Parts: sequence; C-alpha cells; structure tokens
Amino acid sequence: MANAHENLFLYEEISATLEESILQKNFQIGDKLPSVRLLSKQYGVSASTIFQAYYRLEAKGLVEARPKSGYYVRHQPTVKIPIHPVHESQPNLHNINTDRILDEMEELRNSETVTRLSNAIPDVSLLPTAKLNKSVAEILRMQGNQLLDYAPVQGNEALRKAIARQMIAWGGNYQESDILITNGCIEALNLCIRAVCKAGDIVAVNELTYFGIHQSIESLGLQVVAIPQAGLEGLDLNFLEKALQKFPIKACIFVLNFHNPTGTCMSNASKQSLYELLRRYEIPLIEDDIYGELYFGKKRPGNVKNFDQEGLVMYCSSFSKTLSPGYRVGYCLPGRFLSRLIHEKRIYSSSVSSLAQATIAHFLKTGRFEYHLRKLRNALHAQQIFYTKLILQYFPEEVEFSQPSGGLVFWLKFPEGFNGYELFLRAREARLSIVPGQIFSVSGTHQNYIRLSFANPPTPKIEEGFQKLGKLVLLMLRE
Amino acid sequence: MANAHENLFLYEEISATLEESILQKNFQIGDKLPSVRLLSKQYGVSASTIFQAYYRLEAKGLVEARPKSGYYVRHQPTVKIPIHPVHESQPNLHNINTDRILDEMEELRNSETVTRLSNAIPDVSLLPTAKLNKSVAEILRMQGNQLLDYAPVQGNEALRKAIARQMIAWGGNYQESDILITNGCIEALNLCIRAVCKAGDIVAVNELTYFGIHQSIESLGLQVVAIPQAGLEGLDLNFLEKALQKFPIKACIFVLNFHNPTGTCMSNASKQSLYELLRRYEIPLIEDDIYGELYFGKKRPGNVKNFDQEGLVMYCSSFSKTLSPGYRVGYCLPGRFLSRLIHEKRIYSSSVSSLAQATIAHFLKTGRFEYHLRKLRNALHAQQIFYTKLILQYFPEEVEFSQPSGGLVFWLKFPEGFNGYELFLRAREARLSIVPGQIFSVSGTHQNYIRLSFANPPTPKIEEGFQKLGKLVLLMLRE
Repeated sequence: MANAHENLFLYEEISATLEESILQKNFQIGDKLPSVRLLSKQYGVSASTIFQAYYRLEAKGLVEARPKSGYYVRHQPTVKIPIHPVHESQPNLHNINTDRILDEMEELRNSETVTRLSNAIPDVSLLPTAKLNKSVAEILRMQGNQLLDYAPVQGNEALRKAIARQMIAWGGNYQESDILITNGCIEALNLCIRAVCKAGDIVAVNELTYFGIHQSIESLGLQVVAIPQAGLEGLDLNFLEKALQKFPIKACIFVLNFHNPTGTCMSNASKQSLYELLRRYEIPLIEDDIYGELYFGKKRPGNVKNFDQEGLVMYCSSFSKTLSPGYRVGYCLPGRFLSRLIHEKRIYSSSVSSLAQATIAHFLKTGRFEYHLRKLRNALHAQQIFYTKLILQYFPEEVEFSQPSGGLVFWLKFPEGFNGYELFLRAREARLSIVPGQIFSVSGTHQNYIRLSFANPPTPKIEEGFQKLGKLVLLMLRE
Repeated sequence: MANAHENLFLYEEISATLEESILQKNFQIGDKLPSVRLLSKQYGVSASTIFQAYYRLEAKGLVEARPKSGYYVRHQPTVKIPIHPVHESQPNLHNINTDRILDEMEELRNSETVTRLSNAIPDVSLLPTAKLNKSVAEILRMQGNQLLDYAPVQGNEALRKAIARQMIAWGGNYQESDILITNGCIEALNLCIRAVCKAGDIVAVNELTYFGIHQSIESLGLQVVAIPQAGLEGLDLNFLEKALQKFPIKACIFVLNFHNPTGTCMSNASKQSLYELLRRYEIPLIEDDIYGELYFGKKRPGNVKNFDQEGLVMYCSSFSKTLSPGYRVGYCLPGRFLSRLIHEKRIYSSSVSSLAQATIAHFLKTGRFEYHLRKLRNALHAQQIFYTKLILQYFPEEVEFSQPSGGLVFWLKFPEGFNGYELFLRAREARLSIVPGQIFSVSGTHQNYIRLSFANPPTPKIEEGFQKLGKLVLLMLRE
C-alpha cells in the first residue's frame, strides 16, 4: 500500500523537479524539455507517469506541447525579489500601534460587496468540506455523549497523537504528551509569550510580521527589537546577535517558513545557525510555523524545533491555513515550558471545543490529510502562477513583487514615496480589499508596500479586481 | 400555542408553590396537604393538572399519597445553613496561591477509577445529546461550507440573536450587537478583567469564590479585597462600601446567583442596592452568572445587569452548566466596554469555533432549550433532595450544610479545627474526589469546609461513596 501510494505521486515529484529547473532558468522560454522517453528511462518509471508530470506543468501554464515534437518552456514568471531595505543598522526599541488600520480592515472583511484580494486563508472551495462533515457525523455516532463533557485541558489525546505522527513525517520525534491543543495558532502564540515574558520585557521579532503578533506584544506591554530581513533567508542573524548582546531579550518570536507578508523561507542550515545562536544565549524561541505545510517544492521546509535538544523552542501551528479555519484548532509544542503553558491555558480558556478537536482527530486518522494537502499545494501553486500573470499584465513595470515557494501571499514593492495606505483607501472605495504594507512593520516603515494573496481560485470578479487595482496604482504613480 | 405551552407547565408552578410551602415549614412532616379538588378550584385548572403537581412532589420524595385520604408531607430536609464567619472586620489586601491543591485535583479529574462527588457540571446523562447531535447534522447540511470559514470575532450572529431573545425572557432588553461570544465563561471573565485592570491594580471579589477566578487574578498580578458573605444574601454590602472607600478598586468580580461554593443567591433588592453602590463609585462590575438558569424555585433570579443603565456591568455566562460543557461556548454583555473586549478577543484567540457556535444557535432556535432547562432543573432538584438524605444519613450530626435553591453544589461545614484538605487526601486514597473548602478562599481560610455536588444522578457507587466519606469524616472527628 505504501508503495502504491508513493507511485501515485511520483509524477508530482518529477514535475516539481522540472519546474524548479525552469524557475532557476536552466531552461529558458522556448527551450525544448527532455523527451518523455528519456525521462522515463532516467527515473525508471512508465511513460504515462512522465506524461502526467508534463500535463501538470501544462496545466500550470509553464510548458506547452508541440505536436510530434515534444514539450517546450512556455511561461517564465519574472521573479523579482523586493529588496527589503534595512532601515536601521543598530537594534532599537519600538512601540507598536496599528489599531486604526486594523479596524478599517475588519470593517472591509465583514462586507459582502467587497472583493478580497489579500486574504491569508485558503478559499473554502479548496478545503475538504464534505470529508470533514463526514468526520463530524462519524464522531457523533461514535462519541456523541463524550463530546458534551470537557476535553482535557491539554487537548484531545487522539488529536495529539495524530499531530505527533504528522510531525514524525517531517523529521520531528514527538509524543502526544509534548503537545498542547489551543484555540488557533494565535492563542498558542499568546500562551507562549505570556509563559516567558511580563510587561516591560523585551522581545525580538521579524522586522515585518503578522499584525496579530504586534497586537499581542502591545497588549502585554512588551518592548520590541525588530530583526530585519536578509534577502530570501528571511532573517539577518548577525543583526540578531547584535541585538542579543545589546538588550536583555526574553524571547524571540519568528515566522521562518513562507513568512507573512514577504513569503521568504529560511534554509535549514540557517535554521540550525539560528538555533545555535539562541542556545548560546539561552533565549526561548517562539516559532510560528503556520504556513509550513503550504510548500510548492519537493520537500517540506524544516523548522528550528527539529534542532532543539534543550526544549528551548516553543513550536506553534494550527489547522487554520490547511484544513478548517473556522474550527479554531491550533497546537503548540512548548518544550520545557509545557507545564507552564498548560497552567496558563487552564486559567485563560480551559479546554478547546471538544467537537472540533474530535473531528480533526478523526479526519487525520483516516489518512486523508496528506492527500488533501497535496491537492491544496498544487491548487495554490497553480493560483500563484495565474496571479503572477495578472500582476505582470495589469501592474506597471516599476512594481516589484515576491514569488514565494509556498504560502498564500505576494509582497509588492512600489517606488519610494508611493503610499500603500493611500492605495488601500482608494481600493476600498472601489470595493476592493488589500493590505497596506506598513501594518506589518514594527517601526511603521514599508509604506510603499502592499500584500496581495493567491488564496482564492481565480474568478472574473477577481481578475477584474486586479485590473482595477492596477489602474489605481498607475494613476497614483502618475500623480 | 403560547397558551398551550404555558398550560403544559402549569403543574410545575403549582408543585413549586407547594414545595416552597413545605420547605418554609408551613406544612410539617405528617401534615395533610390541600385536596386535589380544592386546589383545582383555587387555580382554575383540571384535577389532572393538580395530580401531576403531586406526582412530581411524590417523585421527589417530599409527599406521599395515602389511599382514600390524600397527600401528606413525607420528607422535610433539615436545612442547616452554614454560617460564614467574617474573618476580617476591615478590608485587607491578599495574594492568592492555590496551585498545588488544584494540580492534585486535576490529577483526580483525569482518573477513571475515581468516584467524583464534587463536580460542578451536570452529568452528561442530563444533557440533550441526541438533540444537539441532530442540530449538528442540520447545521452541516445547511451551512457545511460556511463553517470552515472564520466566524466573526464578535461571534455567530444567529447565536447572539438567540441569546438576546433568551435574556429578554428574564427581563433584560438586549440586542445581538451587545453580545460577545467567548471560549467559555472563563475567557469572558478574563477578557473583562483585562479590559479594566492591569498588573498591580486592586479588585474586589467574593471572599469565597471559584478558584478559576483566583487564578486569573493571580496570573494578572492583581491584588484582591475579599468581600465576605452575609448569610443567604451572599455579600456584605456595608463591607463592600468600606472597601471602596479604603482602596482604589478597579473592578468587582462577583457571583451572585447560586454562588459556587456556598449556593447563596442574592435577592433582587440587594442586587439593586449593589448596583446603586457601584454606580455611585463608578466601579465596573464583572457579574458571573453561570449558574443563574439552574433555579429550583418558580422564577429565575434576576441579575445586576438588569439595573444597569450606564453600561457599567459586564455580564458573563455560558452554556457549560446547562447544555454542552465540552463545546466551550460562553458569552458576555460588556456594556460600555464592548469594543475594548472585542479588540482583546481578536488579539487573544480570535473567533470561537464556528461549528460549536452554529450548533448551539440552531438548538436554541428550535425552542428546545427552555424545555430542556425545565427537565434539567427538575432533575437537579430531585438529586439535591436525594443527596440531602444521603448526607443526613451518613454524616455525623455536627456537619452543617447548605441547601441552595439552585445550582449544583452543597457547601459543608465541619467543626472548627477540622481539616478539609486532610479529608480530601484521605478521600483520594479511597478513590473519592471532593473539593476542600480552602481553595475557594482568597485568604486560605475555610479549612473546615468542603464542597460536594448533586450534579450526578445517584448510582449505587455514588451512594457507597457518600457512605465511605461519612465514615472518613466520623473517623477524623473522633481522632
């Protein structure tokens, strides 16, 4: 069975390899790609498997078949990486306040007439509703009575077991007893922060990061040192070391895989270096890996937790970006801080909703999760390529944007002096919702950036939205 | 329809009236009760309605039918009210630490071999599992797709509407926009506390109160003024006023209806006085009304929120004690602090699980909740009477205990010098779980008290548990 399962997806691996080759410009537009016969020999698989691989690349618009000739590179996205200017050469302390813009965004979120061009959860149509509903029905049948009783504060045991199994698949070795179930990733992050920080303490975060993390920090009265991006690596480790020397930092809070909003992904080697650094200074790391499963390459990116022998890393994730946002089920592997976290969880909100936990546990147990994830990753990748074309088509040349190897979002850079918040306001008038870049910035910089998303399957309405947005940008650039 | 519905439960009202008469000793053991014919005339209802009322009293063991003679008072519980000594005549500041005992209790909670004699949620067999499961199925059928998307941070609108309707039934006049849905009552309480207090601030609480509230207070680094009980009224308002004069109190956190652990219930007149007092000092009240629906009398007790014209009261409750503990759905009407609470909720845990919210909304909409509550109240009341007999039968005379007019728990007082924690430890060895009184006390007093519960339908195992516990008590008293 395991073998059959592997073969089923072999074509995916082959197409991913070809795709990487194309993206790395080993093949240019118009180049002929290796023949089906050659690849079939090379990989020791049937011709039909290779055809399947090419069909996939065709579906993504990357290659085209020319009759009686073979496959040729067709589309090659212009991968422009927005360079993130390091605004400060020295670590500094900041206070954060992004409330006003967030309130305005929330208003838009709840409006039905708005076309959302920047949401960071997969569209519901990409999620396995029917299968999850089946799991609910099964769970009710099997455990109906039990579900009305409180779940343990640490979380449903079957769910924790399933998560441990899931983590083993990508290199971790954990037990269900290492895991705490939470109300989404955001509660996990909050519990971790509260476990090691108190008002007035200093934490280090990505210079750009999810605004929810800013708000938690602000609400706790913490101070912040912003660690700048370093190209695709996502984090300037030299700067971090300077910061650790200069300030009594109590914890680091980093998103390293398909970072929101920049889409960068730290290499495993750098993750190891990061761990060594934190270990040397004995600084706990709160690792937010909520996008880790949404990779487009051949392998899941690793995480710092995998190097953690000392229990110094508090790993946080959830099922909100992969399976069931509305269920609000997250989890945490808090290492040596586990008992403190369980204690805080009991105080703050007690156990997580039994029905949601048991349903996800059941779904994971059926083995459908991996299958669903593959489908989801493929869909997101195809969408990313489609939206890339839209941006290239409708936006002026000056606009640079990231093309991450996973996740859900684009990070767009406009020329210096462009005001992303102004674009947000004008887009809002046109009933389009985007996210201005500055709300991701600890220091209120990055005003000439915005975040867009490829989380939705394209519709005429969305394409029209991109077109309208492109016009607004053009107008603003010419003013 | 409304009338038919009222008639359906008319016999309940009549039986409640008779019952109150018996409890107030208007009728003594052996007394003959009014004849069916007389009552039928007096109330203008059919004889069968009166018979139904008597059947209910019979089922509860309060009356017995004597052939060809009528109904007679059979059992009359000895209502001994534990007098709560006021330990301090002046308001003082306290720090709280009850962690060790709570950890020991948690251990017991998770053990299968333990007979639980003190749990404060209704046994699952008293909850409408089948009907709730039906609501889940309906919700999946109707809203399957939507459930995977995030619910609004403020909460499912249908659920908030249903709660507003529910509150209108007992005298409040609220809109869905006044309500915030939370992860159980405990998150509501935490959000309220955080909205108006910061580390170092002073709050006033019941001298005895649910240990979860202690822990929240401790975790936030707040200081506490304990307001003592005043007999059945539950709160010494003169003492509270002294405390308000002496300390810069930032908020009050009170349980007033079927208070855990004492079972006391404040009269509506006193609630109004309390409100006037707080209004004069402009002090927000966090009103925890989680037991309010579990009344055994004719009418639901009121709450302070009903007097609140200024938005000063933050009313908190949940469905955990009435419908579905495991679902973890609570709610809050935070008056003027609403937007601050929504803000904090978004930061801390975002929205509540969509599935649980939609299910409860559906269940409430079917109109089954009121019917279920009536059944639940009757069952709990009958259990209370049954367990009263067990305590009278197996415990030594010196033990005094409350017999509350609602809720789930008994509060037992032992002679001065008795150690409730020692009894807890000995009971634990006998695989019985009880709760020692001191963990409810802000100042660590009440060591000669324990809490027991009537939340479980009686079983031979539980009766045996009471018998064993009684023996342990006897042994300790003789030592």
